Amino acid sequence: MIIHLRPDTPEDQLRAFGERLGAIHIRQPERHVLVTSSKRQALNGEAEGVEDYIQETFAFGDDRQLAAKTYTGGKMRRVALSDSLAIGGDAMETLMITGPCAVENAAQIEKAAAFLAERGVKALRAGAFKPRTSPYSFQGLGLDGLKLLAQMRERYGFAIVTEVRDATHVDAVIEYADVVQIGTKAMYDQGVLRRCGKANKAVLIKRGFGSTLQECVQAAEFVLSGGNANVVLCERGIRTFEDKTRFTLDLCGVAWLKEYTNLPVVVDPSHAMGYRYGVPDLTRAAVAMGVDGLLIETHPTPDQAWSDAAQQLDFDGFAALQDSVQAVASAVGRTMI
Amino acid sequence: MIIHLRPDTPEDQLRAFGERLGAIHIRQPERHVLVTSSKRQALNGEAEGVEDYIQETFAFGDDRQLAAKTYTGGKMRRVALSDSLAIGGDAMETLMITGPCAVENAAQIEKAAAFLAERGVKALRAGAFKPRTSPYSFQGLGLDGLKLLAQMRERYGFAIVTEVRDATHVDAVIEYADVVQIGTKAMYDQGVLRRCGKANKAVLIKRGFGSTLQECVQAAEFVLSGGNANVVLCERGIRTFEDKTRFTLDLCGVAWLKEYTNLPVVVDPSHAMGYRYGVPDLTRAAVAMGVDGLLIETHPTPDQAWSDAAQQLDFDGFAALQDSVQAVASAVGRTMI
Amino acid sequence: MIIHLRPDTPEDQLRAFGERLGAIHIRQPERHVLVTSSKRQALNGEAEGVEDYIQETFAFGDDRQLAAKTYTGGKMRRVALSDSLAIGGDAMETLMITGPCAVENAAQIEKAAAFLAERGVKALRAGAFKPRTSPYSFQGLGLDGLKLLAQMRERYGFAIVTEVRDATHVDAVIEYADVVQIGTKAMYDQGVLRRCGKANKAVLIKRGFGSTLQECVQAAEFVLSGGNANVVLCERGIRTFEDKTRFTLDLCGVAWLKEYTNLPVVVDPSHAMGYRYGVPDLTRAAVAMGVDGLLIETHPTPDQAWSDAAQQLDFDGFAALQDSVQAVASAVGRTMI
Amino acid sequence: MIIHLRPDTPEDQLRAFGERLGAIHIRQPERHVLVTSSKRQALNGEAEGVEDYIQETFAFGDDRQLAAKTYTGGKMRRVALSDSLAIGGDAMETLMITGPCAVENAAQIEKAAAFLAERGVKALRAGAFKPRTSPYSFQGLGLDGLKLLAQMRERYGFAIVTEVRDATHVDAVIEYADVVQIGTKAMYDQGVLRRCGKANKAVLIKRGFGSTLQECVQAAEFVLSGGNANVVLCERGIRTFEDKTRFTLDLCGVAWLKEYTNLPVVVDPSHAMGYRYGVPDLTRAAVAMGVDGLLIETHPTPDQAWSDAAQQLDFDGFAALQDSVQAVASAVGRTMI
Repeated sequence: MIIHLRPDTPEDQLRAFGERLGAIHIRQPERHVLVTSSKRQALNGEAEGVEDYIQETFAFGDDRQLAAKTYTGGKMRRVALSDSLAIGGDAMETLMITGPCAVENAAQIEKAAAFLAERGVKALRAGAFKPRTSPYSFQGLGLDGLKLLAQMRERYGFAIVTEVRDATHVDAVIEYADVVQIGTKAMYDQGVLRRCGKANKAVLIKRGFGSTLQECVQAAEFVLSGGNANVVLCERGIRTFEDKTRFTLDLCGVAWLKEYTNLPVVVDPSHAMGYRYGVPDLTRAAVAMGVDGLLIETHPTPDQAWSDAAQQLDFDGFAALQDSVQAVASAVGRTMI
Repeated sequence: MIIHLRPDTPEDQLRAFGERLGAIHIRQPERHVLVTSSKRQALNGEAEGVEDYIQETFAFGDDRQLAAKTYTGGKMRRVALSDSLAIGGDAMETLMITGPCAVENAAQIEKAAAFLAERGVKALRAGAFKPRTSPYSFQGLGLDGLKLLAQMRERYGFAIVTEVRDATHVDAVIEYADVVQIGTKAMYDQGVLRRCGKANKAVLIKRGFGSTLQECVQAAEFVLSGGNANVVLCERGIRTFEDKTRFTLDLCGVAWLKEYTNLPVVVDPSHAMGYRYGVPDLTRAAVAMGVDGLLIETHPTPDQAWSDAAQQLDFDGFAALQDSVQAVASAVGRTMI
Repeated sequence: MIIHLRPDTPEDQLRAFGERLGAIHIRQPERHVLVTSSKRQALNGEAEGVEDYIQETFAFGDDRQLAAKTYTGGKMRRVALSDSLAIGGDAMETLMITGPCAVENAAQIEKAAAFLAERGVKALRAGAFKPRTSPYSFQGLGLDGLKLLAQMRERYGFAIVTEVRDATHVDAVIEYADVVQIGTKAMYDQGVLRRCGKANKAVLIKRGFGSTLQECVQAAEFVLSGGNANVVLCERGIRTFEDKTRFTLDLCGVAWLKEYTNLPVVVDPSHAMGYRYGVPDLTRAAVAMGVDGLLIETHPTPDQAWSDAAQQLDFDGFAALQDSVQAVASAVGRTMI
Repeated sequence: MIIHLRPDTPEDQLRAFGERLGAIHIRQPERHVLVTSSKRQALNGEAEGVEDYIQETFAFGDDRQLAAKTYTGGKMRRVALSDSLAIGGDAMETLMITGPCAVENAAQIEKAAAFLAERGVKALRAGAFKPRTSPYSFQGLGLDGLKLLAQMRERYGFAIVTEVRDATHVDAVIEYADVVQIGTKAMYDQGVLRRCGKANKAVLIKRGFGSTLQECVQAAEFVLSGGNANVVLCERGIRTFEDKTRFTLDLCGVAWLKEYTNLPVVVDPSHAMGYRYGVPDLTRAAVAMGVDGLLIETHPTPDQAWSDAAQQLDFDGFAALQDSVQAVASAVGRTMI
């Protein structure tokens, strides 16, 4: 249950009320927001002393609350990614986020960045902390990778999207990134989620490949209830019995997210497919669904990439894809940015 | 392994050669085709006596053979659905196939057919033999349903697409339908597949919701190796852990089918989603991928439908969807038919 | 809803009542049974004229009705497999059903049968109609295979368990088998299920590898509502994302079947595992759960088997397994038969 | 690839060799161990200068290396849990680990501990940091919970098994626990895994419910390659399409782990099943497979539990289960401890 209270609610009565409810408190300029478990469907005696300060209450069928479309009356949240870039809301735009799987070295990221800037790309993605499943693979450049990404921002003006692997380096990622990407393997990581709830950066949560849509939205609730309203969700493929492709992109799930949540939705066809031949078709499919953004892997020399070699586009492949999606976006009344 | 032999290969030598190989024989006007297990990678002594009649041989890595894109040198098969309607090949068309889940009675199917004919729909789908999972639900009108569908063809000129549930009534479906739909629960049914291999009607094979892409293509091999070259594949959602939607539409799988097989591909977003709110977005996604056809449930009064009530579009919903997809098709260089 | 009526209910009133309900009628010596959809929770005016003949009514939450444990008041059904062999009920026995994947030729099945008879095995399994996923693999000996199995019954007294692939040969399988096995790929095949509902042979339904437990029980309802009370269910592994093993044996599902249905439950560890090294451990696990039977593949020379070579036990392997399970059965108060 | 070097290998040559290989170095009393990616199958020039110190090399087909059974020549690792308790190896013992889902308060954990001590239980499990999927549910007592568990150890001599949720509190869990449990949602958390690799406590890694067996073993490789040899794996159910049970216990996977890894294997039937009615049968199944340990939830008053209420056993249920498993363990030549 969500309760809105007037900004002038007396502090100690507010605190006492929150404690009686076991509620999480979010302080916003225009109001106080208290959130309890959705099991609570109404207020009874707990409101004693604050009745006059309560503006509105919202009851829910499950713990999809701050992220629920019913909470915002059908309105979609618009999320600022940087001073000059935002995603979602009613803008009818689709944002292209692209870049290599990982920062490998200064030359590689510079080459990718220069090309993508020339192509008008506004958001650069690349990993510095790689959540590999084996300790014996390339693990990413870590802090050095973050610094290289910051240089690309300074040089080309990108919003930087980069992944946090676990709570040990979440502060560093928050410091250097514009958009903190919580990867598919970290979706349940409360050390990361709670810290991001206190950050002033946008947070992009990738659905765990073994996670339900409901759990993905509840991961967003950790960040939203921490006070950070800038959350974007990303569908990137779930794990199924099919093994001809790396994962199974769940576009039914995207339709559900669009129907039931108020958060911008991004689709990552590269990780879902696992092979570059399918990325263009799936990208166009996502654009035709009217998603708010795309996350696509592009690498100067994919075959030499240190990770995800099979699925990254080369420059020609990206350019061809980018050229083709404009018409699809127009066909559904949207603009590619 | 596939072996092409000249049409004038002497009959008994051909038969002896086929027996030595344990091969399936397909008689075509322009050649004889023998197909063995893909485990055979080359001919040795078996060809003795027919060497001069062999035109070409094709080896494969698995039992995706007649359906393999490598077999046709990259060319996609074009499949005739009726005298005036075909699907696939290099036509750059996307065919709308639609209609109610089931034929419920004469008035209902007439109402749907009249509306869809007016909307320019060329292929009508509706079930007469329903593969329900419970014996206590509505099971379809059976032969009476087929007859009603035949009336709709006569009245409006549709190609009729209808499902065969099992081998007991496959002859009837072949007699009345233009396109025999082998449903998701019958995909492994050899009684049906083998019979369809001997039929002169197009066959639309729906992927089993628990079936791999490879198995789906191998189901097509049963029909193709029986001598019926008119096979269309349909992706309609697979079963995963996600339960907010009825199934998970596998568009990564569609990308794979387009890359590795020579068969036309149809997408059914209605059964995948299970809820009508997601059908338009998923339809546009499929069109943007350049599929050859769509299978969409439309019903005069969806809420009173005897099956699949939640997922069928009403007439307004269908009209709005149909209007919207033209632009998406154009954006990828295709025409809706 | 299930309604029991006295055996002397007047035939035409019974028929009229059944029609008003849209019910399936089962004629039993001791009563008439009518079964409607579980959506019906009570009788109203429909019972007019037969009120005095109604003995008992049973309402259910879903279409698990004749198979529900609540229907039999907690009692488990005992199913006759042959004149001298039965399974389930409160017998505290676990039946070993074993034999090769397929009948390959007379010598092979004779060799297996002789060995298994000597080991005291009472039920022989082997396939004559093989539901292969490729048309280019060995498809089974068909009717010749059934005849060889019938010879083994005459020679050694086995109950014969063999699979029906589809409706085209279900009559032959019913004629030759003692237990008609409906395989995992045919679980939804109503042509087979309905025919088996009219047969006087026991029916073993294998859960589809992509099928829910609920659907598996509803497949049994097709047979039970046809009037054949002799149904056994078999868990044989479901399809999941894990690929180190062939399927994933769902023993949680077995626990559910034991709790909620009144049917005997058999476990097939061979197909679930796909590799013989895991079969003994999984067999002992199933026995420790108190299942009513086991379905295990044993072949004279597994490495030369024409199908399922990796998972079949050889004679020594089977003997060692058989020796080891007695103690496990005793530990849970059961006897191996 | 794993390389064993003599303990007297000169430090700087060892370091240079390791750097040339990009290897991880583990210092053991009896030898130096270097581990590289399994892509390396042999040494070439890199060994120059250390040839004489190399004792043995091991090549592998994938990054299952330190955990591979082939590495230990078929021998299973024995893992010390406390001064007086160990698991695995060739001991032919099965360890019962049990306790409530969460520490709720002093009275509840004391009540559980007293009962379990009386029943001879040697390892107590309970969560202090709960990885709930909703921020609005009970999140565990945190550090206070750990302190209560430490009191139970002092009072009753238990080895304490408790879960780390994320990297922010891994130090505290390592300090208070005897066995650090890495939960199903944290299996990929390198912040946790790497820290545990440097800890002197046993680590129990639960397989992620969306994770493959291979990934689970590779999670163990993070800990093992950090220098901590005390790793135990736990199968606790994977996520599948079946929704009648909470998860699907993968006992085929347990058979694979026993065949291919050298680590002790524990099974958690409580979380797999999700309902207490199935826990006893599944526990007996696991014991019959010869697993090294069990993880079972027992609560003084399950229906009032703050989490996992449906699946926890009450005291009578646990006692009955414990009594029943002894015979099953004996039947497979093992002892319950």
